[in-house]
Amino acid sequence: MSYTLYIGNKNYSSWSMRPWIVMQHFAIPFEEKWIHFDNFDENSKFKQTVLTFNPFGSVPFLVVDDFVITDSLAICEYLAEQHSALALWPTDIKQRAQARSLTAHMHTGYQKIRQYLPFNIEAQLPEIGKIILRDHLPVKKEIEFLDNLLSRYLKRSQGNYLFGNFTIADAFYAPLCLRLKNYQIQVSDDLLKYIQTLCSTHGITQWIDAALKEHHFVAIDEPYRFSR
Amino acid sequence: MSYTLYIGNKNYSSWSMRPWIVMQHFAIPFEEKWIHFDNFDENSKFKQTVLTFNPFGSVPFLVVDDFVITDSLAICEYLAEQHSALALWPTDIKQRAQARSLTAHMHTGYQKIRQYLPFNIEAQLPEIGKIILRDHLPVKKEIEFLDNLLSRYLKRSQGNYLFGNFTIADAFYAPLCLRLKNYQIQVSDDLLKYIQTLCSTHGITQWIDAALKEHHFVAIDEPYRFSR
Repeated sequence: MSYTLYIGNKNYSSWSMRPWIVMQHFAIPFEEKWIHFDNFDENSKFKQTVLTFNPFGSVPFLVVDDFVITDSLAICEYLAEQHSALALWPTDIKQRAQARSLTAHMHTGYQKIRQYLPFNIEAQLPEIGKIILRDHLPVKKEIEFLDNLLSRYLKRSQGNYLFGNFTIADAFYAPLCLRLKNYQIQVSDDLLKYIQTLCSTHGITQWIDAALKEHHFVAIDEPYRFSR
Repeated sequence: MSYTLYIGNKNYSSWSMRPWIVMQHFAIPFEEKWIHFDNFDENSKFKQTVLTFNPFGSVPFLVVDDFVITDSLAICEYLAEQHSALALWPTDIKQRAQARSLTAHMHTGYQKIRQYLPFNIEAQLPEIGKIILRDHLPVKKEIEFLDNLLSRYLKRSQGNYLFGNFTIADAFYAPLCLRLKNYQIQVSDDLLKYIQTLCSTHGITQWIDAALKEHHFVAIDEPYRFSR
């Protein structure tokens, strides 16, 4: 099998980050190709490029020999199955079911956090974080829910991650945790420690370093700034 | 393993329908328990009942002996893994990857169809269908996209379903197809035939029959009617 993972800008594309850090963390060899973000109009270069591979018009997607997998979760499930010895999901059946439940919730949920605190690795926006928490109760509620949920799993964990060792569930929650860090949202001690762990995790550090080296400013992903 | 699947009203709960028809279709034994829809307020009976099992506060969820799986896709992945001989996903690796891609897209997508054409098995609303298509271009575009996508897979299929035999991918798209039927949306011949196939598929017919026998009217799910 040869793998080519198509991703967006590392600074902005939280969905691209998830399968990328899984592959990097578990040392699954792959080539990466960037498709730069623009305004995402139907006729934009981004859409036109993506649509030659992926009818859904989004990144990430994984090209495997002669076929394409078009969603971060579908990619991770495929990899977990193909590389079962690596334990991309927890090996315990009950923990694996819980990890899938948490991951599926991330796949569809946290809409308010995603809307008001857009993913932006390079930006430090503590003032925006304060204003959003003051003015948007649903964001505050989602953060409280997230903190309680992750803390509960972290307390029970036999390791530094949600289910002991690093799994797909951690990869799915990592971008959300980086948001909390960059908007300097106050969180519980358990969650704070977990965010620090994530930031020094193999795969995530590489992604962050590469994101910081990018120089593109994508206006559509920058509701709070005029430039970097 | 003993399975108890908690579901909402069969007439309204499209997410409950997905794992239910998978289990029914593949003859995986389970007990079902209903939690009736209400206004979904934090203090509502629905929320209070669900929250004793599931922190995310939603149906469906599957209780397996001493643990809970809390999302339709996580439930289906768990079942596919535990009952691998039944081929809940396509057995071909490439088709399985494509089925997972389609299913993941359904898990997060088609937001406009879901918003403007809410799931309602008992209601026949052709006039509403016409008005929505006339006034809401994004709904029309999503339906055209869906029709093209499914038609492409159906043309290539070696059977009557998206990937030959019935799989989780069909279970995920079935509620969307029932919407098109009940709002009498014009679709391609391939899709029309597929919708007819779904409506006579074991598991789906049982769900529809049970939905038609319900008598509850849930106002929050009925933007277009005052009563049944």
